[in-house]
Amino acid sequence: MATFDIKTYLKEKRDIVDSYLKSYFSIPSEPSVLHEAMRYSLFAGGKRIRPILALASYEACGGDPEDIIPQAAALELIHTYSLIHDDLPAMDNDDLRRGKPTSHKVFGEAMAILTGDALLTEAFYMLSSIKVQSSKLKAQSLPPFNSPLSKGGHRGVTELRTLNSELILKVIREVAMAAGAHGMVGGQAQDILSENSEPDRDTLAFIHLHKTAALITASVRMGPILAESGEDILTALTKYGENIGLTFQIIDDILDIEGNTYELGKPAGSDERMKKMTYPALFGIEHSRQKAKELISKAIDALKIFSFEANPLRKIARYLLKRRV
Amino acid sequence: MATFDIKTYLKEKRDIVDSYLKSYFSIPSEPSVLHEAMRYSLFAGGKRIRPILALASYEACGGDPEDIIPQAAALELIHTYSLIHDDLPAMDNDDLRRGKPTSHKVFGEAMAILTGDALLTEAFYMLSSIKVQSSKLKAQSLPPFNSPLSKGGHRGVTELRTLNSELILKVIREVAMAAGAHGMVGGQAQDILSENSEPDRDTLAFIHLHKTAALITASVRMGPILAESGEDILTALTKYGENIGLTFQIIDDILDIEGNTYELGKPAGSDERMKKMTYPALFGIEHSRQKAKELISKAIDALKIFSFEANPLRKIARYLLKRRV
Repeated sequence: MATFDIKTYLKEKRDIVDSYLKSYFSIPSEPSVLHEAMRYSLFAGGKRIRPILALASYEACGGDPEDIIPQAAALELIHTYSLIHDDLPAMDNDDLRRGKPTSHKVFGEAMAILTGDALLTEAFYMLSSIKVQSSKLKAQSLPPFNSPLSKGGHRGVTELRTLNSELILKVIREVAMAAGAHGMVGGQAQDILSENSEPDRDTLAFIHLHKTAALITASVRMGPILAESGEDILTALTKYGENIGLTFQIIDDILDIEGNTYELGKPAGSDERMKKMTYPALFGIEHSRQKAKELISKAIDALKIFSFEANPLRKIARYLLKRRV
Repeated sequence: MATFDIKTYLKEKRDIVDSYLKSYFSIPSEPSVLHEAMRYSLFAGGKRIRPILALASYEACGGDPEDIIPQAAALELIHTYSLIHDDLPAMDNDDLRRGKPTSHKVFGEAMAILTGDALLTEAFYMLSSIKVQSSKLKAQSLPPFNSPLSKGGHRGVTELRTLNSELILKVIREVAMAAGAHGMVGGQAQDILSENSEPDRDTLAFIHLHKTAALITASVRMGPILAESGEDILTALTKYGENIGLTFQIIDDILDIEGNTYELGKPAGSDERMKKMTYPALFGIEHSRQKAKELISKAIDALKIFSFEANPLRKIARYLLKRRV
């Protein structure tokens, strides 16, 4: 693994997710403006971190990422819907996201609300897919030594894992729990409710754990759940997920203060403007950076149960710490 | 079935759904205002028509409604979220719903958006339940002739149907498709886009089919899907669902013109105020009422494949035609 390059890895995985999403959303449908609005936000340059985490953790558990692309990609739909709704005038009132005008700026408020609703609903359609990749199905029907066509499919024939319906349902429950009132939506609600309040450690921890860490943890747990890994592996990856999830939010909050609008693609300083309860606001930038480093150490430490197969997860953790956008 | 009374039937089924929902949402959670807002709209006097249709169609297909309560009840969460979002100032801007101030009037716009998001997400958690009723599980562990406690449970022991994961996934895909961009959300988007436009028959049909009939049809189809009924039964119930779904919207539109605010529990005439494209606006009240009657005849006609076991569905169809609220 000496030649392992995290940037190449992230790009490769992002391309897999993007190509699935592009094909999924390529069929023209009415009303066209709604579908255009869904694509607008979905293809606005997202890093696909959550799907990549799901693919990487499934890989770490011995699975072939190709088998769970719909489930992994669905996480991006949920993330995207949450950004559209969070940006609304009634919520954080942001005009820019990833360097582009936000959904409600382009399509109007009503359409932005509906676009978020549509993406969230579609996510559950995608999560409940049971079909495996068609390339694999083709490969499966070929003798393994048949022709160059069976290349790649070769592995597929012997290692093909058709997703088990019970496991998919388990994942749906996990994701719904992490995304809903007991997870992300609950965190966002607390975030809104805490604007202008005196910051306190417990409320901040609640917001971070729910608003960001819950869905990231669910993304990481998707791997071991679908791979039917043992309890020890699930526990290790849960710990990894929680720690990188918290880091993700702290870095976001630091970037909001330190970054510039051009780099961030959204107005820097908007947390300050909205009097948001953030980690840097409560503990200062230096302490926040230190905290983020500690969390990443804990995340990597949690992976000691794995050998080289978790190298991508280790590299992703370090990458999240250093990210500038 | 001479003594069959539709009002008693509807009340009995509504009580089953309500008691499940009340118990489900009884656990206190943070942030309390979000959970309060979810309960506020969910227990605002909804008629539970969609869950009742699912239970009645499952019963018509030979199933015991008790087995699919979570799946049926989840439909009400989706319906409730759609009302909360539709009422928002950026959408239909309604202040009253079922005689009570709308969610955003009580909890503010941000919280109303999040409450809708939370209910929609929770619906998929509920849909993916695989556990059967605990009363049945208890009954199962008792000898069938044990005591009065096993009464009712008696049937449970022999007829208990544990839901099959593959069928649940199929239902999740159906419901997501009916509720999302290709169904209800698509219809609501077209409805918003068509405000102030010259009414035309095709657009109106699109709006009705998607905004209302899609989820009602999915509710009816839940029964035969979970009961693993044959293709002929599924086709018949689909036709029934589409026809009552369209009727439902036409009656809604007539009531919006003819009803008074007190009876309706929402401001009468709001469609006219919003320049909505409705059936009465295009064809007049008398023609609309005639159309509704025809649709209900078609719906009942589609049930001829069934004997008495579809009587509740027949009565529900007639009830929908006559409803005043």
